[in-house]
Amino acid sequence: MNNQTIETILNHKSIRKYTNEPITKEQIHTIVQAAQQASTSSYYQAYNIIGITDPTIKKELSLISGQSYVENNGHLFIFCANLNRFLLKTDESFKEKITENLMNTEHFLVATIDASLAAQNAAIAAESMGLGICYIGSLRNNIAKVDQLLNLPPFVIPLFGMTIGYPDQEPERKPRLPIEAVYSENSYPQNNEETEKYIDEFNEILGAYYENRTENNRSDTWTDQLHRKLSKPVREDVTTYVKSKGFNKK
Amino acid sequence: MNNQTIETILNHKSIRKYTNEPITKEQIHTIVQAAQQASTSSYYQAYNIIGITDPTIKKELSLISGQSYVENNGHLFIFCANLNRFLLKTDESFKEKITENLMNTEHFLVATIDASLAAQNAAIAAESMGLGICYIGSLRNNIAKVDQLLNLPPFVIPLFGMTIGYPDQEPERKPRLPIEAVYSENSYPQNNEETEKYIDEFNEILGAYYENRTENNRSDTWTDQLHRKLSKPVREDVTTYVKSKGFNKK
Repeated sequence: MNNQTIETILNHKSIRKYTNEPITKEQIHTIVQAAQQASTSSYYQAYNIIGITDPTIKKELSLISGQSYVENNGHLFIFCANLNRFLLKTDESFKEKITENLMNTEHFLVATIDASLAAQNAAIAAESMGLGICYIGSLRNNIAKVDQLLNLPPFVIPLFGMTIGYPDQEPERKPRLPIEAVYSENSYPQNNEETEKYIDEFNEILGAYYENRTENNRSDTWTDQLHRKLSKPVREDVTTYVKSKGFNKK
Repeated sequence: MNNQTIETILNHKSIRKYTNEPITKEQIHTIVQAAQQASTSSYYQAYNIIGITDPTIKKELSLISGQSYVENNGHLFIFCANLNRFLLKTDESFKEKITENLMNTEHFLVATIDASLAAQNAAIAAESMGLGICYIGSLRNNIAKVDQLLNLPPFVIPLFGMTIGYPDQEPERKPRLPIEAVYSENSYPQNNEETEKYIDEFNEILGAYYENRTENNRSDTWTDQLHRKLSKPVREDVTTYVKSKGFNKK
């Protein structure tokens, strides 16, 4: 049943090392067009995309993320949730009213989901052209600094970056949780023991993957990774930053 | 430069009327697999998908959304943000600590983005098979009721649905904002007048689209639509519901 598109989707691997071959303006245009054609809640198109070509800004963003490939790639996109455009073309009193209505969690969700659907279209479009991509959530290590670097107005926040380029590595495809742990019918699975069994199964598969993979092989499981990461608070400042931009305030 | 995948992405139109031809279990399996292969923040896979086959639940969800095609389709998926799996396989004291760390906006973002990337992979995979899809944000008209119907535990919330099926309509492709209003380089556009010019341009294109389209043609613009929708508060209860599930609390 698999066609070329499904093959592209199933073969996704995050690429963290790129050749020097540049991405053309035409490729960037096609990727952004693909992003724009994604579904959008109430036709709001509540996101914007910023491409980074300035080496100084790229360097700064790479320092925030701690990842060298944020600097070294074919192109770098930043995807922002954006409700700011709704405040244009209004008089002051209507603007106040709209601003008030945009502050709830519903609109924070709408803009985050819109931006994410657009981003995934961009990712698939890029991969279908033989490019590799990597999402950069680590820009949220210092989200207020990213905001400053990109001159973001109220109701615009950077959610994540995406590096794009011709792959200069061939990582193995990373396994996923067993489908039974992710997909159920008519109800959330009520039996935690069963889900734990699937997680055990996944830990075994993943253990073998980590032991055998070509680069950076180690002894690890999914559960151990989660527990290490979640044992300390992370990015607590995202909460106040998001509210400071008008999102998620009430 | 366009390949089959990019054609699929650029031809997206939301489908709201489906034939009676059923979707096979194999198709559902492939679509969920495609969803699972999307990028995931810190490998968290912080989402789950519930397929609805029970006609009673489908009917209830269709009443919540106010859309008949939520009942009448080839298949209905609900995409949930899910941090609950992180609380399995832990002892009580570690569980408390993790719970505390999961409550911030950062983790609410992580799970919402993960679920959305997975959903868009599902959408593209389905469309590449000749199926049509429509996102169902209107499940958030009564998000607490959806939660009840699907027996969702703490740290699992329904974000949106997706209807899938063989199209029984051929809507025109809906225009998008000019690329210049969505994509900029190195900085957010600092000139609002320029963005307003692009919105004016879009309002004209969209006005013509609404006047000429085959079904439900009318006189309207993007700005007018936005202003109508945003002039009153919507889904204010989403804020408290989300917090009641542990998300976005601090």
